[in-house]
Amino acid sequence: MITLSSDFGSPYPAAMKGAIASRCDARMVDVAHDFPRQDTRTAAFWLREVLPYFPPAVHLAVVDPGVGTDRAAIAVRAGDHALVGPDNGVLIPAARRLADRDTDVEAFEIETDDPASATFHGRDVFAPAAAEIHAIGVDGMNDLSTLAPAADYADLAFPRPDIDPDGASGEVLVVDDFGNAITNVPGEVLEGRPDGTVAVDGEPVPVESTYAAVPVGERLVTVGSHGNVELAVNQERGEDAFGIATGDSVRLDW
Amino acid sequence: MITLSSDFGSPYPAAMKGAIASRCDARMVDVAHDFPRQDTRTAAFWLREVLPYFPPAVHLAVVDPGVGTDRAAIAVRAGDHALVGPDNGVLIPAARRLADRDTDVEAFEIETDDPASATFHGRDVFAPAAAEIHAIGVDGMNDLSTLAPAADYADLAFPRPDIDPDGASGEVLVVDDFGNAITNVPGEVLEGRPDGTVAVDGEPVPVESTYAAVPVGERLVTVGSHGNVELAVNQERGEDAFGIATGDSVRLDW
Amino acid sequence: MITLSSDFGSPYPAAMKGAIASRCDARMVDVAHDFPRQDTRTAAFWLREVLPYFPPAVHLAVVDPGVGTDRAAIAVRAGDHALVGPDNGVLIPAARRLADRDTDVEAFEIETDDPASATFHGRDVFAPAAAEIHAIGVDGMNDLSTLAPAADYADLAFPRPDIDPDGASGEVLVVDDFGNAITNVPGEVLEGRPDGTVAVDGEPVPVESTYAAVPVGERLVTVGSHGNVELAVNQERGEDAFGIATGDSVRLDW
Repeated sequence: MITLSSDFGSPYPAAMKGAIASRCDARMVDVAHDFPRQDTRTAAFWLREVLPYFPPAVHLAVVDPGVGTDRAAIAVRAGDHALVGPDNGVLIPAARRLADRDTDVEAFEIETDDPASATFHGRDVFAPAAAEIHAIGVDGMNDLSTLAPAADYADLAFPRPDIDPDGASGEVLVVDDFGNAITNVPGEVLEGRPDGTVAVDGEPVPVESTYAAVPVGERLVTVGSHGNVELAVNQERGEDAFGIATGDSVRLDW
Repeated sequence: MITLSSDFGSPYPAAMKGAIASRCDARMVDVAHDFPRQDTRTAAFWLREVLPYFPPAVHLAVVDPGVGTDRAAIAVRAGDHALVGPDNGVLIPAARRLADRDTDVEAFEIETDDPASATFHGRDVFAPAAAEIHAIGVDGMNDLSTLAPAADYADLAFPRPDIDPDGASGEVLVVDDFGNAITNVPGEVLEGRPDGTVAVDGEPVPVESTYAAVPVGERLVTVGSHGNVELAVNQERGEDAFGIATGDSVRLDW
Repeated sequence: MITLSSDFGSPYPAAMKGAIASRCDARMVDVAHDFPRQDTRTAAFWLREVLPYFPPAVHLAVVDPGVGTDRAAIAVRAGDHALVGPDNGVLIPAARRLADRDTDVEAFEIETDDPASATFHGRDVFAPAAAEIHAIGVDGMNDLSTLAPAADYADLAFPRPDIDPDGASGEVLVVDDFGNAITNVPGEVLEGRPDGTVAVDGEPVPVESTYAAVPVGERLVTVGSHGNVELAVNQERGEDAFGIATGDSVRLDW
């Protein structure tokens, strides 16, 4: 199985699928092609959250503001999975989670002397590499002449929250399609809050385990399916009701 | 084959696909993931119109404003098909059509003691259930320990039109992506209309069998591919030209 | 393999997939379903650019402003590929490229006496034809009783640029999802430009091989992955920065 992720919109992902299908019979599953343009952090977040639900697979993921520059193209072995994409960190948080421990993450540089398009490496470099890795298997990556062990690779770190006895200072990592603002604050901080309320930037908001626990249109704080604290509104958009966007700081007080 | 439908947008559907693919080898086909948010009636309409074109399959469909509350999770056997989703009626119109008669619709409650996410049952409850049903086959649903016959289930009914000798009073059920306003009035009422014109909310509009029968930008009344009366504009949006939206009443006079 | 392309949005493409899956086991791959509505030229451009990356396949492509009129439904054999869709030219540029030479393009009219929907030939005419061709294979098209050699078929031509010693006068063929304005001027004209600058409608713009060669937000001229001259902005939308849209004329001076 090869999964495909990008910020390409439409129809460029189809060219990648064609390039794969003309090289191997792998099942292809789209993860998303509407990641915010050139936003490697948001893509890295979603890849980390979604890819672990897949069985062992090759994951092609292209969010690549530096396409055509001298940034490397890399393939990463992470446990039974492989990831293929640009060397800008977008693959690494997912790779770490797929591998469970850092020592299982092994990076290779993709060597290509093809006169590939300078503007569409997804089709001309990454898709062929994903097909080749799929054909030989993750364990065969060391044997591929097109892959060379990478001395180093770009990392990407999410900001860490500050947690103190009175609360937590965090940041909105992403806003999902429902408008839920997903923070970097781990959900555990909400466990055992006595009165079921937390102050979000000074205003009290109920802590609930489901969106529907508050009336339609009302704000709540919950732990999302990713395990982080999430600012939401039942059946409406949390980002609007909280006046908050990706990258904004948020203060929670117990 | 497992089909997938939801109001999840992107990339949450991919987590459901991963959950399925890690449990079975079923082919997966997306129906839609952009159903209007928490709008069970619109989703139920489209599922009823689209799913009957598929061969026998398991249809996973999640539009679930009550996720995490005590609404049940159900699986429905409908002829050679199965449907899996929340017990809020969204599955039932499609199930009735797939089964051809009500007596072939059999509902089961999905029992799960997994500490599933309270906010993402699509991934943690429905996708695993769909994979399990796919593996054992529709005829094996009675044997699954995770399914218990449901004493009852939530239904969902579309409003019925009032048809009289002079015309019909109906309602716009959905507006499709082309802007065609699909009513609940059955297409048969237009058969044999002598002068080829019908009054829509008092204004005469030609009755045509194809959009292109009127000039670009002109209004028409037709019978859509779903068999209902549809208010449309050739190559433009009927909802705008008729000033009409989902849920609005519409009066047709012959 | 059957690829699917349309301007249907959602969820109508799923009805086509169901109609195919109920007739054959072909792998189905979406190319795009968000082509601009009824815009056969833009769809023809993308089909020509994307389909050649696929292995031999049946390509179902429906952008069909004349659905239900007496325009024919056609199937085209192009080398090892087949294309199925309306006889309005949308298939032909791709067919020519897939065949490599015109003599390999052979058109058939799809005959159907089914009481098909007059408004959804994608589901009721084209999808069944694609499944039938997939089942018998491209070489068997001559033997299908539902296909009759077509005496003629509608063509679709892209405007040609005027290239002179001082520059080129062209047109924007399409704007892609990144906002890159893709012209009809072949990329070769930029080869060996001494000072690396070209005047676009009188204003000098750097010629670069990658988007990232200029600062974020700056304009550039490049040769896109399709081989044509493209007006772009690094990480932003070229169409906005150049004030240009599909169909607009553009003048390049060396």
